[in-house]
Amino acid sequence: MKTINVGLIGFGTIGTGVARVLRDNSQLISRRLGAELVLKKIADLDIVTDRGITLPAGMLTTDVNEVLDNPDIDMVIELIGGYEPAKTFITRALKAGKHVVTANKALLAKHGDELFQVAAKAGVDLYYEASVGGGIPIIKVMRESLTANRITAISGILNGTCNYILTQMTDKGSAYDDVLAEAQKLGYAEADPTFDVEGIDTAHKLAILAAMAFGTPINFDSVYVEGIADIQPVDIEFAREFGYKIKLLAIAKEGDGGIEARVHPTMIPEHHMLAKIDGVFNAVYINADMLGPSLYYGQGAGMLPTASAVVADLVDIARNMLGDSHHRLPFLAYQTPNHQQTSYQPIDAISCNYYLRFTARDQPGVLSKISGILGDANISIASVIQKGRNDAGGTVAIVMQTHRARERDLRYALNQIDALDIIDGQTVVIRMETDL
Amino acid sequence: MKTINVGLIGFGTIGTGVARVLRDNSQLISRRLGAELVLKKIADLDIVTDRGITLPAGMLTTDVNEVLDNPDIDMVIELIGGYEPAKTFITRALKAGKHVVTANKALLAKHGDELFQVAAKAGVDLYYEASVGGGIPIIKVMRESLTANRITAISGILNGTCNYILTQMTDKGSAYDDVLAEAQKLGYAEADPTFDVEGIDTAHKLAILAAMAFGTPINFDSVYVEGIADIQPVDIEFAREFGYKIKLLAIAKEGDGGIEARVHPTMIPEHHMLAKIDGVFNAVYINADMLGPSLYYGQGAGMLPTASAVVADLVDIARNMLGDSHHRLPFLAYQTPNHQQTSYQPIDAISCNYYLRFTARDQPGVLSKISGILGDANISIASVIQKGRNDAGGTVAIVMQTHRARERDLRYALNQIDALDIIDGQTVVIRMETDL
Repeated sequence: MKTINVGLIGFGTIGTGVARVLRDNSQLISRRLGAELVLKKIADLDIVTDRGITLPAGMLTTDVNEVLDNPDIDMVIELIGGYEPAKTFITRALKAGKHVVTANKALLAKHGDELFQVAAKAGVDLYYEASVGGGIPIIKVMRESLTANRITAISGILNGTCNYILTQMTDKGSAYDDVLAEAQKLGYAEADPTFDVEGIDTAHKLAILAAMAFGTPINFDSVYVEGIADIQPVDIEFAREFGYKIKLLAIAKEGDGGIEARVHPTMIPEHHMLAKIDGVFNAVYINADMLGPSLYYGQGAGMLPTASAVVADLVDIARNMLGDSHHRLPFLAYQTPNHQQTSYQPIDAISCNYYLRFTARDQPGVLSKISGILGDANISIASVIQKGRNDAGGTVAIVMQTHRARERDLRYALNQIDALDIIDGQTVVIRMETDL
Repeated sequence: MKTINVGLIGFGTIGTGVARVLRDNSQLISRRLGAELVLKKIADLDIVTDRGITLPAGMLTTDVNEVLDNPDIDMVIELIGGYEPAKTFITRALKAGKHVVTANKALLAKHGDELFQVAAKAGVDLYYEASVGGGIPIIKVMRESLTANRITAISGILNGTCNYILTQMTDKGSAYDDVLAEAQKLGYAEADPTFDVEGIDTAHKLAILAAMAFGTPINFDSVYVEGIADIQPVDIEFAREFGYKIKLLAIAKEGDGGIEARVHPTMIPEHHMLAKIDGVFNAVYINADMLGPSLYYGQGAGMLPTASAVVADLVDIARNMLGDSHHRLPFLAYQTPNHQQTSYQPIDAISCNYYLRFTARDQPGVLSKISGILGDANISIASVIQKGRNDAGGTVAIVMQTHRARERDLRYALNQIDALDIIDGQTVVIRMETDL
């Protein structure tokens, strides 16, 4: 049987998972591929820590050149993450004629198009299934299964940490800080959770999906991002009363004004499939003109699920090698020369329903003042809840659901409302999506 | 731009959908493929009926040879369904060196392996994404995305008609016959719904998925099949009390005793993702050793969703043609020479929890007699409900949930119980799956 040799750079959690998959399911993979994938060399700066897997002597090295300059290695897996030295290593591998598999969403979101160009020039493959949705085969679906469709909208839960935190807050009524601390203890959140909870990781992934959906270059800088750190249990409770759940959603749509790409806490109707995705699970919901809605659900992170996606890429590339057919697939769903420079809309240009929670002095005329300003800005109110009387500070919570309104109009109105002396602090705004 | 010519046999609902997709999204498809797909010829015995799409003069013919013998046609789509003449047409196309795309699950479930052999010999592709799950890309996922995994179980809702009927019965408490009549009026069920409601269509699809999952030849005859026609609203109501929903499930597992492949009404916990799939939608839930659980959801039938899958296959094959790499993918996920003749287990060999509804004479000692027989057969009872007193006929409904039991033991016990003169008619049995 033919063998294809693989080199791995980065022996952390996912790297260990890849080594385990290639060891434990090697026979199964060979039965499907008709050839053998052989892990030849692993480069990592730390070769001391025990990863719980026994490797043949000499396989592990601290010298990345033993992978990059190794003429026996056909494919290189990059799993160190971050921009540098990952970018340099991938570029060197591609230029050396080696196919590359990566899970590095941050790098692709910023420098993907440049790296794809290097790969195209070198006549090799650069695959990245594990970069979005972990083990969910969403990249393949976008590149190969939806080719007959105009994709009208993508809505995704793309970060397991955030979804775990929001699910716990919803189920237990706990505060954000408490749930985050618990998630860190359980290993569902990093010691420094910034990238996850501020929505940046989700935005990296959305930047990749949006480019694939609409046939444009990757445009991370145009993705609007808001994280989940400000979500209060009281807003989750009000959402439930309205029949909604709060999720950190990645949304991309193409409309007349260009592309809308945004990541923010979102209220979605409780009967929507995405409202049912709980815990660390991820899901991507796609609206397409011919297929209609479809959903892809699974584990968006973790050692073995992510390794499953990395190895699927290895098998795909190996099939290309055996069939001698590279660039069978365009890098980003559309052929690169056919990319369009569609503009991405600023967040001000979107429109949706809004959930608003005002903290107001408990005195006559407050509601009329607020609704007057909203009305002048063309924002119409769908429902109002005012619970209990005032708290110790003499304020009450006034909660509103608006009808469809423009973000620009809303911000204009809230600037005025928040400047009123009857309003305490900043009004809480959560976008409600009813037509995902 | 290069053009690739397509011939279509069968201009019914799906065929019309394919013509519409290739007309409406032609530019989009070319942007992704880097070549143009051109529909050259459509063969159908009925060229009179108006399908609501205007075709160029001469495109439509009643003579299938104008497709099969046409040297300009590179790929043939078969959408007539059934065994013959579909099998003859596909075989002729393959032997003529044309790639074939089909949505014909009945044919593949019975003669798939034979047709794949013909394709392999002719050096051409035979793709079938639309045959299972309609527009859901489940064939691609099984063939290309789960290659790193041992698939341990597949559970699918694979027939929209059945799922629509069961959803309506659940939501409205209506009787099977009434909902079926309504579904026929709405076009969700055929005039002759036998293939759907008796589970045969689902079994065809499961036969294909099981072969892909476990690397065996297709074995339709070993799939156990029960339909939904006997489901009573009262059982749906009792299921709800237990925290379950009833779905027509296709289940395939590989265990020590061989492969279990079965289609039957199944009670599943109401919090399981599959319990949330309502209406005409389909979904496939897969357990795999590395990826863990994943779910694929979408429209399992209908003109445009199914056409979306057909055209995705055309694009895939066109990419193989352009890259000159056929048989990049094995026909059924595993390389054919690596198929194993794993035996399929008879239904007697399975074990699960059972829902039992006895119709018993309302007299002392009945419960003790039933539970005695169950106990002697090693079947332990998890809970019992006995509602109200007797009906006009002097009988009462006794409903039980068992712990995990073997089907063989259950049948042995039920044979004895149903023969008791205190028992009226046949006991209702519905399998409960708690570990999907």
